[in-house]
Amino acid sequence: MNITVLAGGIGGARFVRGLRHLVNPTNGSTSTQGSPTDSKITDSNITVIGNTGDDIWIHGLRVCPDLDTVMYTLGDGIDPERGWGRREETFHAKAELEAYGVEPTWFGLGDRDIGTHLVRTTSLNSGYRLSEVTRALCERWQPGVNLIPMTDDRAETHVVVDDPDNPGQQIALHFQEWWIRYRATLPAHRFVIVGIEDATPAPGVLDAIAEADVIVLPPSNPIVSIGTILAVQGVEQALRETSAPVVGVSPIISGAPVRGMADACLQANGIETSAAAVAMNYGARSSGGILDGWLVDESDVESVATIEGAGIACRAVPLLMSDVERTASMARACLDLAQHIRRARIDQTS
Amino acid sequence: MNITVLAGGIGGARFVRGLRHLVNPTNGSTSTQGSPTDSKITDSNITVIGNTGDDIWIHGLRVCPDLDTVMYTLGDGIDPERGWGRREETFHAKAELEAYGVEPTWFGLGDRDIGTHLVRTTSLNSGYRLSEVTRALCERWQPGVNLIPMTDDRAETHVVVDDPDNPGQQIALHFQEWWIRYRATLPAHRFVIVGIEDATPAPGVLDAIAEADVIVLPPSNPIVSIGTILAVQGVEQALRETSAPVVGVSPIISGAPVRGMADACLQANGIETSAAAVAMNYGARSSGGILDGWLVDESDVESVATIEGAGIACRAVPLLMSDVERTASMARACLDLAQHIRRARIDQTS
Repeated sequence: MNITVLAGGIGGARFVRGLRHLVNPTNGSTSTQGSPTDSKITDSNITVIGNTGDDIWIHGLRVCPDLDTVMYTLGDGIDPERGWGRREETFHAKAELEAYGVEPTWFGLGDRDIGTHLVRTTSLNSGYRLSEVTRALCERWQPGVNLIPMTDDRAETHVVVDDPDNPGQQIALHFQEWWIRYRATLPAHRFVIVGIEDATPAPGVLDAIAEADVIVLPPSNPIVSIGTILAVQGVEQALRETSAPVVGVSPIISGAPVRGMADACLQANGIETSAAAVAMNYGARSSGGILDGWLVDESDVESVATIEGAGIACRAVPLLMSDVERTASMARACLDLAQHIRRARIDQTS
Repeated sequence: MNITVLAGGIGGARFVRGLRHLVNPTNGSTSTQGSPTDSKITDSNITVIGNTGDDIWIHGLRVCPDLDTVMYTLGDGIDPERGWGRREETFHAKAELEAYGVEPTWFGLGDRDIGTHLVRTTSLNSGYRLSEVTRALCERWQPGVNLIPMTDDRAETHVVVDDPDNPGQQIALHFQEWWIRYRATLPAHRFVIVGIEDATPAPGVLDAIAEADVIVLPPSNPIVSIGTILAVQGVEQALRETSAPVVGVSPIISGAPVRGMADACLQANGIETSAAAVAMNYGARSSGGILDGWLVDESDVESVATIEGAGIACRAVPLLMSDVERTASMARACLDLAQHIRRARIDQTS
């Protein structure tokens, strides 16, 4: 089975780790107690299309936070507490940059992480494409999935806010500045992905959507992670056209983001912070959207009928990613829902 | 008094620290027991013309080992044991580059050091000249001297050796590879400074030589440190023409380099590893060379007559740089010898 996942950072990475555990219980996990699997699932190939809208050139280095979070999480190099960056990380170069008075100082540039950025930056400057560089970096990390950036082109998310220094004026901050420096507390008027008009999908992206048996939207940020991937030329259309069921996992539980500040992003786009509203925003494929199925948390069980009423198959299951086993169960629920959708289609057409 | 020093790395940096202590005993030293000084000396400005022939672009970073050694040593950021790089340094980014299998792996790229290299590299890539960037970096370190790179142009020393992998063939290694990776054990046929033909002195270099009251060659490597500075267009001629006495300190004591592998460099140029041979190689100004005076170690006292016979005023003094006080005494001996040379000239002309 070919499983394609559109992923942002921490939420997407943790989901894929659970999915990989389901597909191959011995990979990247010390547990031998796998979820029950069938041979179709254990034969699966996982392709992850990673968001690069959060990418930033900083101190001359090209940093790809979401790709690296996926790579480090699946390669067991992630800091398990923070959820981003390397384990046993130090921040000595960052302290030096501050001592020199060089801005920006708010970005968490770790020393081990810099090793990755140096390899990436020199490779990009030598003419390699980001997708090639990502593949090369993954040679080391062996993530057990095929990780592809959404695009090889530069397309960086900016956030239009009231200028904190000039009342009455608006400015566009780089997403990272808004997210990290301001902790998303400056109300966002809108998101602008600079360069997205010219961003074409990286090699393999459209094929991974067209040739998938199931497509999963993990509990990543629907606006600045998955929304950004969808904004790349042809991606949303490919999702509408693929024969694979498209199943998503709600990043909102009981009206709040599981982690991160997705509510600030939803508000900017006028979307309620609820599992149902996010599903409705993606929309049912039957009515021009991209979703066939949607998983909500058990605590949001009352929204299932609304979502199904909009033409999106919906299940309420525990959406905890507190450990790999529980996450694998979530992934299993995705695949089960996809299977249900596939069967329902066959029933319809027969 | 204007004192101009042509410096390489560790030896030059330590000498200048002693010289600065002589000029300003409270700067950068916890000792209050200064050497006896007169007001002429304590009013001195020190200009250091730094060797950049050892510079290397590595992993996309521009590294200036000699400039940084001077800057860190005078700014109290140096690792006192190694004599190069930052104190309390870590090498996590370097370990990552190795884990990715990215060459070269032999260069000691420290994490704190990378902070400096990132500032320098982004500034250079933004169009600033190395001399401007060096001044900006020194804003932080406050070395108490005016540190100028010999040139803003790229001119990197290479070493022609027998190719260890292809018998019968010669290859040119970057100086750093020869020095660090091979510990200068591959016999050098010759040194080639790639780009030196087009390297012009950085702003301030020729003025610092022309307007000096004394010029000091510290115990830096005579071939690949001071020799490289001399190879920059116009520098050697400026030294021949300046009215200031040019006084050097032997880097060779009792037939061996005080530290480093200067002997391997001298051999390549057919120069004996002795205090006298190095002085003769610089040559007396009276016979077309650049030296007016030369300090040898007490243990080399028997060479004083030979050197003086060649027209170079010579003294035998303790050439220990084991601490700042002793180094200040060496620097004092340089200034005393310069004063002696100046007086002898006046006696000659009157």
